[in-house]
Amino acid sequence: MQHASIRILGIDPGLRRTGWGIVEAEGSRLVYVASGLITSDAEDDLAYRLRSLHEGLRAVIAQHKPQEAAIEETFVNKDARATLKLGQARGIALLAPAQSGLRIAEYQPNVVKKTVTGTGHGEKGQIQAMIGFLLPKARFDSADEADALAIAICHASHRGTERKIAARMPREALP
Amino acid sequence: MQHASIRILGIDPGLRRTGWGIVEAEGSRLVYVASGLITSDAEDDLAYRLRSLHEGLRAVIAQHKPQEAAIEETFVNKDARATLKLGQARGIALLAPAQSGLRIAEYQPNVVKKTVTGTGHGEKGQIQAMIGFLLPKARFDSADEADALAIAICHASHRGTERKIAARMPREALP
Repeated sequence: MQHASIRILGIDPGLRRTGWGIVEAEGSRLVYVASGLITSDAEDDLAYRLRSLHEGLRAVIAQHKPQEAAIEETFVNKDARATLKLGQARGIALLAPAQSGLRIAEYQPNVVKKTVTGTGHGEKGQIQAMIGFLLPKARFDSADEADALAIAICHASHRGTERKIAARMPREALP
Repeated sequence: MQHASIRILGIDPGLRRTGWGIVEAEGSRLVYVASGLITSDAEDDLAYRLRSLHEGLRAVIAQHKPQEAAIEETFVNKDARATLKLGQARGIALLAPAQSGLRIAEYQPNVVKKTVTGTGHGEKGQIQAMIGFLLPKARFDSADEADALAIAICHASHRGTERKIAARMPREALP
């Protein structure tokens, strides 16, 4: 039986730092493709920081051509101002893959942690250690990149069965 | 003394309904140009609703070519889930004019109300009545359009003096 391989983009959005990671899944085999961090200048105006983030993600998608994307369902914390800020960055992180017609799945943080570490309450260090084990070729410098790779791995593991995935795909990409 | 005229786009962002309004200001004279409502299908996935909103705003900007944009500083309420949702739509509403290199100003809701109605606690009906008075040619069907026009009028009135406006404009528009 032959498995078609699929390229998955995981995104860990944030206004200051957005981590991204691309994994190729062929059946149960996972291969690290690339990962990185998109940062924005805190001196810049909000709208132009969002524009930088958008340009960065569009460039990653254009270069690596993922077929599906996955993003964490943001933890809704008690700081409304932080939630608003995160929401703005998350809107851009959802828009960029939608503009290329990608399927986009959302996962709750505890599902991502459980998939990667076996427990829903894994610590940051534990996730990074497991990424190193699951993707031995992975090179990343930050927790945000590791988290983005964890989200991509989570989607590779759940993509056949997940419920939250976009239903009416594929759509036409924008020109 | 001659006043150059300036076209201002006001945006009242929301995932379900985003109001927009364009006003031309020449000195203290205000002229209604256009307004409308961008809606998204609640049946659709979040990322694709954001894409619709983005396409709608980009089309408005391409058609009417505003030089500056204004948006309300979102009221941070106690419902974190609603704040997150609004944040996502607001991220798109900030991105779209930034992609065309527009100056983008943010105003607090009470400033907008005060500018248009004379009081910081104006009711919706009062705003709509004042829009009819200030922009006699305005045609709008919804409170969201009226609010977007109010934001544009607020910017026309404050644009010489506001502090919150983007500092390092203009920038080059994206292709």
